[in-house]
Amino acid sequence: MKKIILGLPILLIIFLSNSYSNKDQDKKPFDSSDMMIRISEIEIHPEYLDQYIAILKEESEASVRLELGVISIFPMFQKENPNQIRILEIYEDKASYQSHLQTPHFKHYKTSTLNMVKTLRLIDMEAIDSETMPVIFKKLNL
Amino acid sequence: MKKIILGLPILLIIFLSNSYSNKDQDKKPFDSSDMMIRISEIEIHPEYLDQYIAILKEESEASVRLELGVISIFPMFQKENPNQIRILEIYEDKASYQSHLQTPHFKHYKTSTLNMVKTLRLIDMEAIDSETMPVIFKKLNL
Repeated sequence: MKKIILGLPILLIIFLSNSYSNKDQDKKPFDSSDMMIRISEIEIHPEYLDQYIAILKEESEASVRLELGVISIFPMFQKENPNQIRILEIYEDKASYQSHLQTPHFKHYKTSTLNMVKTLRLIDMEAIDSETMPVIFKKLNL
Repeated sequence: MKKIILGLPILLIIFLSNSYSNKDQDKKPFDSSDMMIRISEIEIHPEYLDQYIAILKEESEASVRLELGVISIFPMFQKENPNQIRILEIYEDKASYQSHLQTPHFKHYKTSTLNMVKTLRLIDMEAIDSETMPVIFKKLNL
């Protein structure tokens, strides 16, 4: 009987420690219904390219790190034409996007790169297979 | 003293149970140096759109599920112009891409959609901030 009483808190500790460390797996399934997906197509004046990329890198890193509702701000450039920037942006919902626009890091990016941008197209996208999205992105954590 | 001896196996069990369930976090950091990133820009003849999307969805899901080296085949369409398909493709390296081209699901997609495709541009991209990529994509596992 003494052993059982002694064992109970131990089992409880193991259970709690597992619950805590398994919490990533236990999260609710990914819900994409309110999600906002966009590809931004941006052409940069070549003389500002390095400067622009440094500012964009800082802004996108901060957004992903600090804003829960910013799922992806994934900036790329075309290898054949590095002045052509493409950004895959995924926000949890419209409110997350609106709140992103109000952040100091976005405002800094927007004002400091205004004269570097030659053309800008914001293209709203829809995922063809939203069920596979978490699988895709989980694979990046190799 | 007896308490300490009793406590040791308990600590060991807690440690092991944590190590096991934390193994995802312990994986080696994401290496993007050999990675191949592409945006495919595909325009579809409108009369084939539903058929094309069904075949693409099947192919991209199978690629991500069955091929370790296919990190992302993430298909989208433009909301304003659904005939305009964009696919963010990320392969672990060139060999993974070459092996993808030889799979039955890719070959089926390629041959069965050939007459549905109006224009096709394969644009090689480079990530601006590869360190932030795993953070971005991890956020999709909400």
